[in-house]
Amino acid sequence: MSAPATCDIEVDLAAVRSAHARIAPHIHRTPVLSSGSLDDAVGSKLFFKCENLQRVAAFKARGACNAVLSLSAEEAKRGVVTHSSGNHGAALAWAARLRGIPAWIVMPSNAAQVKLDAVKEPTVAAREATCAAVEAETGATLIHPYNDWRVIAGQGTAALELLEDEPDLDAVITPVGGGGLLSGTAIVAKGVRPSIKVYGAEPAGADDAYRSLRAGRIIPQTDPRTIADGLRSSLGDKTFAVLSTNVDAIETASEEAIVRAMRLLWEKLKMIVEPSSAVPLAVLLERKISLDGLRVGIILSGGNVDLDHLPWQT
Amino acid sequence: MSAPATCDIEVDLAAVRSAHARIAPHIHRTPVLSSGSLDDAVGSKLFFKCENLQRVAAFKARGACNAVLSLSAEEAKRGVVTHSSGNHGAALAWAARLRGIPAWIVMPSNAAQVKLDAVKEPTVAAREATCAAVEAETGATLIHPYNDWRVIAGQGTAALELLEDEPDLDAVITPVGGGGLLSGTAIVAKGVRPSIKVYGAEPAGADDAYRSLRAGRIIPQTDPRTIADGLRSSLGDKTFAVLSTNVDAIETASEEAIVRAMRLLWEKLKMIVEPSSAVPLAVLLERKISLDGLRVGIILSGGNVDLDHLPWQT
Repeated sequence: MSAPATCDIEVDLAAVRSAHARIAPHIHRTPVLSSGSLDDAVGSKLFFKCENLQRVAAFKARGACNAVLSLSAEEAKRGVVTHSSGNHGAALAWAARLRGIPAWIVMPSNAAQVKLDAVKEPTVAAREATCAAVEAETGATLIHPYNDWRVIAGQGTAALELLEDEPDLDAVITPVGGGGLLSGTAIVAKGVRPSIKVYGAEPAGADDAYRSLRAGRIIPQTDPRTIADGLRSSLGDKTFAVLSTNVDAIETASEEAIVRAMRLLWEKLKMIVEPSSAVPLAVLLERKISLDGLRVGIILSGGNVDLDHLPWQT
Repeated sequence: MSAPATCDIEVDLAAVRSAHARIAPHIHRTPVLSSGSLDDAVGSKLFFKCENLQRVAAFKARGACNAVLSLSAEEAKRGVVTHSSGNHGAALAWAARLRGIPAWIVMPSNAAQVKLDAVKEPTVAAREATCAAVEAETGATLIHPYNDWRVIAGQGTAALELLEDEPDLDAVITPVGGGGLLSGTAIVAKGVRPSIKVYGAEPAGADDAYRSLRAGRIIPQTDPRTIADGLRSSLGDKTFAVLSTNVDAIETASEEAIVRAMRLLWEKLKMIVEPSSAVPLAVLLERKISLDGLRVGIILSGGNVDLDHLPWQT
């Protein structure tokens, strides 16, 4: 059995506040919405931070923007590179355009195929190799989708705004894939309001964070099987370090509950959200956490979904 | 040729402000959202007032709430009645529950069938007869879906909030069916900001308001053929009087443009809106009004849509 991964945590509440000051002129201050029907469905008072309305329709704009704006002039000139085919890729391209610098987004040759392919680790390895080649040739800075302190600080700004709008939350829940959003959220929430509970919500079919926190070491996700395509990644050493010390629990949701929660958010909140966004509500629908009568913040992580292929259609 | 319908206008800006004070504790203050992609698509800066996030997912909650709360204690005791099978029916039921009074919502025996049936006038006549019978038997007050000053004043509160949030609008566009929303909007917009342009957007397949304003008399809608099921009604004498004197123009949109606009709102604004809500954007997409470079408010009227049957699915 390998030793626990250890790594110093280099982001605190002050760093997230700095990130917020840096990115606020460029991102949307997204609204926080409620629905009596959804409250009734789970027995808590829910406050949804609508990051599906964020730039590039995902919270990823926050971390990418903070990372790009944190580069020195010298670094920035050489550009940025990443290997995400999803929301982080789009976010980094947007942030680079904002600063007027080059961006290399290493995409699989057929992104749609890969999204359908549950086993994607070999492809990730290939893309990481391509990234390394781009870095070597161009001097571009790698901006990892989540295992990067600048990215984690940026993602934490969503919770900062949520707690400004709703200071009395008893708990906050975010989806967890690679752990960037949950790490930033936990640092902010525990910093602003030490009594708050912080939970991660993960698909049962990609439960590596759940298992990693139980085992006390990173257990990589090898065969993710979930419709929540934003949550198929494994933790990194930085996100593992934050989650291990700042998160109360990670709970999992079935695929059925994720689809039901997604449809409820469309019907009751009137919001287009992607499957990953629905996982926190799914966890509550399955009563995996008991938050009866409490005030619960949920970060709706993104809204990028194929309107021609909805999960409740046969 | 019949003489123009005439009727004194009994609602002004002050009446809408009173309505807003009356209903504000019970309705949502809905957000105003923007999208750079949608701005680019039409060449104007658009501000969407999200009444799809309103109670019962439609602006109709405003008018119904104002009407119900305006009743005397004596009137209220005997309840309210209406013949709308759509959003107004749901809104009136909600408002009556709020005040704890009876409500009779006269529905067709098969609402879904009627929604699919383009020719619905006979059914409306039958329902109006049923309403009259309920009124006679119970003493309940009829709350008409739009041809009622209390309802018109209530609907105007959406524009009041929109212009508080965005005072510099050059124009505002709402969908027009029976004309309640457009009447309230025009009274507020012209009252708050005399230079503003006010437009109604109507499906070409149910263009009775367009034709009525051109003819100078109410031309009833006899055979509406549009997916925008909230916009199949004819004007009433009150809404006709307001629109004739306060609206700059009514423009029509094709069914193709309505579906395209609806999908764009889902994709770019990440909002679930019903087809009726998409008609103002459809009018802009078809370049029926020239508002290049201007700041344009649009009221997204509602978000009640069958997620199992989307108009872009074959």
